[in-house]
Amino acid sequence: MVVLLLAAGRSKRMSPIEDKNQLTFLGDNLLSIQISKLKNAGFSDIIVVCNKHNKEFVGTITSSFVEQEDLELGIKGAILSSEKYIKDKDIIIVNSNDIVEDLVYKNLLALINKGNDGVIVSKKVDNYFPGGYIKVKKTNIIESIIEKPGEGNEPSDIINILIHYHKDSNRLLKYLRNITSNNDDQYELALDSLFKEKNYISLEYSDTWKTIKYPWHILDVTNYFLSKLEPHISKTAEISKHSSIIGNVIIEDNVKIMDHSSIVGPCYIGANTVIANNSLVRNSIINKNSVIGYSTEIARSYIGDNVWTHHNYLGDSIVCDNVTFGAGTITGNLRLDNKSIYVKIKDRKIDTKLKKLGAIIGQNTKFGVNTSIMPGKKIGMNCVIGPNINLHKDIKNDSHVFQKCDLNICNICE
Amino acid sequence: MVVLLLAAGRSKRMSPIEDKNQLTFLGDNLLSIQISKLKNAGFSDIIVVCNKHNKEFVGTITSSFVEQEDLELGIKGAILSSEKYIKDKDIIIVNSNDIVEDLVYKNLLALINKGNDGVIVSKKVDNYFPGGYIKVKKTNIIESIIEKPGEGNEPSDIINILIHYHKDSNRLLKYLRNITSNNDDQYELALDSLFKEKNYISLEYSDTWKTIKYPWHILDVTNYFLSKLEPHISKTAEISKHSSIIGNVIIEDNVKIMDHSSIVGPCYIGANTVIANNSLVRNSIINKNSVIGYSTEIARSYIGDNVWTHHNYLGDSIVCDNVTFGAGTITGNLRLDNKSIYVKIKDRKIDTKLKKLGAIIGQNTKFGVNTSIMPGKKIGMNCVIGPNINLHKDIKNDSHVFQKCDLNICNICE
Amino acid sequence: MVVLLLAAGRSKRMSPIEDKNQLTFLGDNLLSIQISKLKNAGFSDIIVVCNKHNKEFVGTITSSFVEQEDLELGIKGAILSSEKYIKDKDIIIVNSNDIVEDLVYKNLLALINKGNDGVIVSKKVDNYFPGGYIKVKKTNIIESIIEKPGEGNEPSDIINILIHYHKDSNRLLKYLRNITSNNDDQYELALDSLFKEKNYISLEYSDTWKTIKYPWHILDVTNYFLSKLEPHISKTAEISKHSSIIGNVIIEDNVKIMDHSSIVGPCYIGANTVIANNSLVRNSIINKNSVIGYSTEIARSYIGDNVWTHHNYLGDSIVCDNVTFGAGTITGNLRLDNKSIYVKIKDRKIDTKLKKLGAIIGQNTKFGVNTSIMPGKKIGMNCVIGPNINLHKDIKNDSHVFQKCDLNICNICE
Repeated sequence: MVVLLLAAGRSKRMSPIEDKNQLTFLGDNLLSIQISKLKNAGFSDIIVVCNKHNKEFVGTITSSFVEQEDLELGIKGAILSSEKYIKDKDIIIVNSNDIVEDLVYKNLLALINKGNDGVIVSKKVDNYFPGGYIKVKKTNIIESIIEKPGEGNEPSDIINILIHYHKDSNRLLKYLRNITSNNDDQYELALDSLFKEKNYISLEYSDTWKTIKYPWHILDVTNYFLSKLEPHISKTAEISKHSSIIGNVIIEDNVKIMDHSSIVGPCYIGANTVIANNSLVRNSIINKNSVIGYSTEIARSYIGDNVWTHHNYLGDSIVCDNVTFGAGTITGNLRLDNKSIYVKIKDRKIDTKLKKLGAIIGQNTKFGVNTSIMPGKKIGMNCVIGPNINLHKDIKNDSHVFQKCDLNICNICE
Repeated sequence: MVVLLLAAGRSKRMSPIEDKNQLTFLGDNLLSIQISKLKNAGFSDIIVVCNKHNKEFVGTITSSFVEQEDLELGIKGAILSSEKYIKDKDIIIVNSNDIVEDLVYKNLLALINKGNDGVIVSKKVDNYFPGGYIKVKKTNIIESIIEKPGEGNEPSDIINILIHYHKDSNRLLKYLRNITSNNDDQYELALDSLFKEKNYISLEYSDTWKTIKYPWHILDVTNYFLSKLEPHISKTAEISKHSSIIGNVIIEDNVKIMDHSSIVGPCYIGANTVIANNSLVRNSIINKNSVIGYSTEIARSYIGDNVWTHHNYLGDSIVCDNVTFGAGTITGNLRLDNKSIYVKIKDRKIDTKLKKLGAIIGQNTKFGVNTSIMPGKKIGMNCVIGPNINLHKDIKNDSHVFQKCDLNICNICE
Repeated sequence: MVVLLLAAGRSKRMSPIEDKNQLTFLGDNLLSIQISKLKNAGFSDIIVVCNKHNKEFVGTITSSFVEQEDLELGIKGAILSSEKYIKDKDIIIVNSNDIVEDLVYKNLLALINKGNDGVIVSKKVDNYFPGGYIKVKKTNIIESIIEKPGEGNEPSDIINILIHYHKDSNRLLKYLRNITSNNDDQYELALDSLFKEKNYISLEYSDTWKTIKYPWHILDVTNYFLSKLEPHISKTAEISKHSSIIGNVIIEDNVKIMDHSSIVGPCYIGANTVIANNSLVRNSIINKNSVIGYSTEIARSYIGDNVWTHHNYLGDSIVCDNVTFGAGTITGNLRLDNKSIYVKIKDRKIDTKLKKLGAIIGQNTKFGVNTSIMPGKKIGMNCVIGPNINLHKDIKNDSHVFQKCDLNICNICE
């Protein structure tokens, strides 16, 4: 049996986040976390399907990967790219950014061992989710699947999670090739045909399921991992006796926690990171080599590697690697009209249903001093944002943003 | 004997403060404080004269109140509205926002017991005060009263404080009805006639007298009550061992004082209020259910219920209930030219004679991040003030204030 | 033997710093420091050459001074103004803002005692320095001097430091009078003639040499003195047990270090200065009577007397006496493009070669709240800088700077 771990998706919805697989939670990137979970569940033959952008990264994690050439083909493309590895084998297809509890694999293996033609992990949902809905018979055999039916048109309240077992990959490949649609739902169309002829079982899963479809989901996943952390403070961490640490925290090697600062758990502080004087970090992940400078508050946020702050407030925000903030720069994280915050995704305003959401900031971006970032705004990679700005628009990658000069200078002696 | 406690005045001078009687000092509103003082002095029959706006509030304090219909008639209107309660009785008329030491009532009762026709509490003043000036004979019998004579035209250096005893309310009512003026000084005109025919004694009072005529007087009254506080820390308060409390403070039930914060007395911290990490509160009243968030300084200020701050500086300011501040928003409290600060009252600039004065903020108002409020500015109720603003004007109730967009965005890759 | 200590130079390059001699390091002004060094080296007859602007100040340090009338004549003018004091004597000419180690004087005296006609202290340089280059024979006898040859035209890699011994001041005076040039290099031209006819020895000096030619050199000199400080904490200093002091510090009389603040050495804190709650001072000199208010960071800076801050960040900055900062005002100290910072000197942009440089602020200047000062900007004396400004230009002495009003006010009820 082969597990195909799909990590090639390169969603524009996630911009300015480059690659979800590289997001790092509790010291490990998401791809490594998923591979470990699968190995712990007893799967030894795991092939990661990557793309040309994350191939190098994936190579640092595993030697067992294949590059998907045509990303437009979606899941179908991923499977076809892996053909020579899966031929004549049973396969399990797993999405690299669906996070589930380990028990699901144990239950899956039990159903596989009963000789079913296929098993699809499924979940009841209370609200519309833009995924594939399945209709299930009383016997747990699946009748059909409809991808993204649109709100109000759901054929059921059960969606599938992309943990799919197929007994015979050759059969799956044959069905995939029969699909002539050009959309990215060809895999689901093939499934629908398979369901008509073969016994695919729905494995209903009712425990926690997290997925990263939109950037703000990273905060949800951050919370999930923080809720699971096993407290640990490295012996090489230097922790001031004038600081305070409350609740569950992981503090990695060579971290410095300086005077009059506070860590309010759950929190993860990555290796070599400095939490400087009088700062406050709460309910956040801060990855390695970062400096949370004097008088900074980080609340409910995901902070990457090598991020530098001082005199800042970052709340409910996602900050990628190598971002620097000038003193006094602040993320607004609440609308003044108290409405839920929307984020523009490909020119559409998506209601996040969140009352609190700060900024989403791509890697290598720099901010000047005393700048204000409005709730839910996305700032691209490699941007330079000047000082004293009210940043109330999304900013594209590689932009420079400055304020017009409006000084009145009067020389009273003249 | 009946005490008429006048609480119906609805001064436009106090805008955006809605009702002085509801201001809360050391956990008690001003009306309750006054009623307690009178009861402690031995008066049991106290009737509060209120208006339609504060009637509901007054009803929560006492069942013994009467609503003044015609607010334009001032003190005369208050007395006439109470006619059926005071008929055939001796009365003492007391203003609800004149704050005096308890001894005055003891001295007043002594003079009443000597059988005088009336007693007027009076005070020598060093500077012009816009009130009623009295001329007093050597025998302490009052000759006359002139209301607001204007600076330079004072007939004496003695003003009256509205703690007035009248032996026979029927006589007072008769004199009041004889006045045909339409101005709001009809009570003082009636007094002047009475002084000509009856023996009204001046009870000179030389101790502390505070009154709330203009909004910034609230800070003066705050200081007065703080100077009197008896230290008390509730057993249900949670106080971090990493915080510091210096000087006289009252800390009420369920207050949380968090790590690395400081309370420098005299201070009053109301029930359920949180003083968060690394904040500093000094010489201030903070009422109940408020959150003084991380890295905020509150200095010499009056803060209402349910006020939320973080990363702010509020100095010499008055903040009504339910106000929220975005991070980095700051009250300027000193003019850069070091002159004393003026406040606009009904389109007139009034010199407060104060070198330090911050903002005066009505209830339910919200501020964005990184906004600067200039000294002595009044921000109305129910306002929304955007981020990154230099707020250098008074703002009317129910206003929205935003800055024009002035971003230069240049995409360097294009 | 007479030492002429030259303190009359009034460089426009140093604007807005008024007088380098009055800069105070570790509690002593630079002039006093230099006089002490010379006295310790055994020189008793020291005459300070001053100008009309610093004459009063110099008089508070020593009674042995002479005023230079014509400042345009440079060193020649200084020597001629001192003629009656130096006649018939050997002289040593020393510049008041060249800082060297004490050993140089011992070595100088050794060479003087050998009977040389003159001794010039010299130093090998790695990079071009805008001073006087000398050519030296193998015998250490100096051949010639060329003042400011321009980069690429240096006749050697050895510059002279203005510690010059002349055996016979009468001879020097004669040579000076023979020079007919009108430039400010007449002294060096006279030297060049002397070198041709007399044996002037080069005393090569290889230890630390600091000089204050441009304002940012003050930070270099600050660092130098901090590196030398002998730790001392006055018994009259009040130091909170909730504060932390790390590394080498001098804390003078009556200093207050308040709760949750940190001093990270090397630091010098002058008498009567307050380091208020939750502030951080590191690698800085803060002179006397200053208030480093709540939540302020001072890093790698020189701060004068009577400077008031709160809620500020001052990094890599020079702040003269009597400067006040509104809350939230911040010095940017890094360019967003990471280039080295230039400073305009007399309309020329000079590359400081520094990656970090904050503001250079003249005395008696006031800043409003939430203002941002860009890296390397000079703000003159007696300025008033308004609130919420992006200060991206140098500001002349006595200027008022405000931002244009750009509020949109909309009354939603209307």
